[in-house]
Amino acid sequence: MEEQGFKKSIAVLDTSLFVNPDVRASFGEDPTSALENFLFMAAQAPIFEFYMPPSIFRELQNFIEPEKIPAGLLVYIHQKSPRKYEIPVPGFLLYELVEDIRERVNKGLRLAEKAVRTAEGKSADEVLQDLRRKYREALREGIIDSKEDVDLILLAKELDGLLVTADQGAIKWADKLGVKWLIPERFKEYMHELIKKSASLAGAEQKEGEQA
Amino acid sequence: MEEQGFKKSIAVLDTSLFVNPDVRASFGEDPTSALENFLFMAAQAPIFEFYMPPSIFRELQNFIEPEKIPAGLLVYIHQKSPRKYEIPVPGFLLYELVEDIRERVNKGLRLAEKAVRTAEGKSADEVLQDLRRKYREALREGIIDSKEDVDLILLAKELDGLLVTADQGAIKWADKLGVKWLIPERFKEYMHELIKKSASLAGAEQKEGEQA
Repeated sequence: MEEQGFKKSIAVLDTSLFVNPDVRASFGEDPTSALENFLFMAAQAPIFEFYMPPSIFRELQNFIEPEKIPAGLLVYIHQKSPRKYEIPVPGFLLYELVEDIRERVNKGLRLAEKAVRTAEGKSADEVLQDLRRKYREALREGIIDSKEDVDLILLAKELDGLLVTADQGAIKWADKLGVKWLIPERFKEYMHELIKKSASLAGAEQKEGEQA
Repeated sequence: MEEQGFKKSIAVLDTSLFVNPDVRASFGEDPTSALENFLFMAAQAPIFEFYMPPSIFRELQNFIEPEKIPAGLLVYIHQKSPRKYEIPVPGFLLYELVEDIRERVNKGLRLAEKAVRTAEGKSADEVLQDLRRKYREALREGIIDSKEDVDLILLAKELDGLLVTADQGAIKWADKLGVKWLIPERFKEYMHELIKKSASLAGAEQKEGEQA
């Protein structure tokens, strides 16, 4: 029974599945054991194909102990960048980004002005610390945060895969581009259900084959 | 002789052609007379089709006296927005924009920090004025500035037209997307040459027709 009679399910994984404590709980106590457990489960789920952009994989390396992950298991997560020079995105996204830049730039200026106004009589260090925190907080809240986010969304789009991420920015973009997504908290259940479904389908096919 | 035997030349016009003093010199002394003269020339150049995004046209309205422009002449500049929900752009542009946002945000923070540090002993108004000027100057220097720029580039791309602009940001983007562009300073000469060429081609065709 080489062919299973149904399409492989492609999932594009963000680090949050292993790194975010609330999210990875279903897989493991720390990032390394979460990844390890996930990979053991993936090895038993041939219906799935897992992808991770190399930029995200590099990010993940900062959280795990690579020597604890059996190399053999890593075959279950394909590292692949999106074909960024080929995949098209609709032009209206450029307008949203330009608007986003404009808003952030204005927000930044307002924060800077406020800091200068409150600087009188305070230590510069104190004002600067406060400014940096507020500035980063305010300016991080854009549509999109990083190249890693773009990698995730474009790869999911290219592969028509399910994007598994807890990143609100990435989710917002996925919605703009019609990319499927799922919050990582439910991903383990989702895998279980799909494995069950594929097993029962395979069983039904085998039965049909025997009767024929 | 209805058909001229060669393709119409499409040009997408930015305001700079009429507004920028160095640029519009070949057409007129002020924006209104530059537009007027351009339109008279356009009326005699059926080989050209001129387009302007409505956002750019609105910008232009701030510089001209509309009552001085004969309405009949306005048929020579088509107002049209790009099909922004249909035109695709390559995904790699998203990376460049994200990088651009990141750089500008960092630049803004550095300027803000500097302003706070120099605020001691100076009047807040003075520091703020300086900050605002520097901030706007530094943060304007991105890849792309405004929705109007996006309109220009996407329209030229959609129509496969010649983008006539002096805006360095728009030119940078035109190059990324393989859009033809020309600096407005040379546009009058360009029109003259193309009109001459089309006239001689038409003449040759007529001769051929007579001989046949």
